Amino acid sequence: MSKKSPERPLILVSNDDGITSPGIRTLVELMNELGEVVVVAPDSPQSGMGHAITVGNTLRLDASTIFRDLGIQAFECSGTPADCVKLAKHHVLKDRTPDLVVSGINHGSNSSISVLYSGTMSAAIEGAIEGMPAIGFSLCDYGHDADFSHVRKYVTQIAQQVLQTGIPSGVALNVNFPKKTDHALKGIKICRQARAKWQEVFEERYDPNGRRYFWLAGNFVNEDKGEDNDEWALANHYVSVVPCLFDLTAYHAMGTLNQEWEIAVGDETPDTSKQASHR
Amino acid sequence: MSKKSPERPLILVSNDDGITSPGIRTLVELMNELGEVVVVAPDSPQSGMGHAITVGNTLRLDASTIFRDLGIQAFECSGTPADCVKLAKHHVLKDRTPDLVVSGINHGSNSSISVLYSGTMSAAIEGAIEGMPAIGFSLCDYGHDADFSHVRKYVTQIAQQVLQTGIPSGVALNVNFPKKTDHALKGIKICRQARAKWQEVFEERYDPNGRRYFWLAGNFVNEDKGEDNDEWALANHYVSVVPCLFDLTAYHAMGTLNQEWEIAVGDETPDTSKQASHR
Repeated sequence: MSKKSPERPLILVSNDDGITSPGIRTLVELMNELGEVVVVAPDSPQSGMGHAITVGNTLRLDASTIFRDLGIQAFECSGTPADCVKLAKHHVLKDRTPDLVVSGINHGSNSSISVLYSGTMSAAIEGAIEGMPAIGFSLCDYGHDADFSHVRKYVTQIAQQVLQTGIPSGVALNVNFPKKTDHALKGIKICRQARAKWQEVFEERYDPNGRRYFWLAGNFVNEDKGEDNDEWALANHYVSVVPCLFDLTAYHAMGTLNQEWEIAVGDETPDTSKQASHR
Repeated sequence: MSKKSPERPLILVSNDDGITSPGIRTLVELMNELGEVVVVAPDSPQSGMGHAITVGNTLRLDASTIFRDLGIQAFECSGTPADCVKLAKHHVLKDRTPDLVVSGINHGSNSSISVLYSGTMSAAIEGAIEGMPAIGFSLCDYGHDADFSHVRKYVTQIAQQVLQTGIPSGVALNVNFPKKTDHALKGIKICRQARAKWQEVFEERYDPNGRRYFWLAGNFVNEDKGEDNDEWALANHYVSVVPCLFDLTAYHAMGTLNQEWEIAVGDETPDTSKQASHR
């Protein structure tokens, strides 16, 4: 686990809905009670950007007045959430390393397979890659006017907990909250990512010039019957917390491939290594 | 492992450098010898797009004549590599499921942490999510005129192997090739993702109007001393094959968090579940 928090921890806030979204304002307000906040967030919505970064194109970064009412330093960036965290670390903050990176609160779920497509989580994972404790927060409500009132307590608790005890190295937390309903939240569950996916539907339309285009739509299909996954937790009125890796290696599959594959003659001398090699 | 390949397997080809890149032409030529090829690839370069998808915006998909000389059906898409695979599966191919999804050959490395930022691998991982055996191929040479001659044999071998024996469920292969040098390739190694990262540098410039902008640059820093990782394999003239997951759950961290966290009182009744809950 990482270091204990200092007296007044430095907290970097980003998101993927853009710096003007209500979700990031809620997060900034809450983090402002826990430490010194610096915001570096996209200047426009970046939903669905996954772990995209801006290569082959320029990046803008400008001071923003949007959190001046809270006395908080903020910057808006033309890039992706991952760009924002990189720019924050290597340009804005330079010699100072945040004690915590938080992203969100996203307007919409990032549970299960959505973690892969999530700009919110890419900011958190980028923080983890840089060795900083990092959390992505998402509310299962896509509305711009989503009600965040029931999650404020949990956001603060989880951030405090991480500031106190850290997160295992190489891990970022994917925190999702149920949409506000009549059901009170029951607490927090540490979960695994549910084995669910989007069943895509592409809606075909024609523009005013008669040229075809598509809208990506789809239904979320969850065939995971477990009670230890994030979809189960959310459906049962829990806050779901999934610790996420950025080492994608399927370690269990390495052995299988080593056994089954019998290919790949080297172009030169036979390979005499003791490693998992193939001839 | 997945099913055996049929007589003439259906192979979906995509990439992230765009449909006109030399890398995808090499891949299409090679796959054309193994089965029926359908190409759905971006109409412009999408490098660094990670697992981005197009939400909140329209998608174009048009027939392309670019592989007509090979008699191959091809489509160019305005979206990301992940969009291409989704559109291929749910619109272009509809009732036919590819026996193999291949992406690349990327002009540039996607080893180690770069897998997260890789559009090439996002197409492969999207294939895996859809339950199809999938491989991303990348050459450690960023040049548009990169020499692919030394990797052709391996691309074919690996694709044939996967068509024959499949890939463990929930896994996509990240295959990287050393750049063409005087060193002959020694063979293939099944590897884990090296624990390395990019040390970002943002180069600050000013546009003709005096407004500041940045270029993302950086150095690749590899502090992983292991000989079982992809960086070691590539540096030692091997083809690296990393099996990659799309379940990001850090299973080892779930226990740690369950032990260390003592937060999250429910809003209502105490939680009496036997699950990993927290009060």
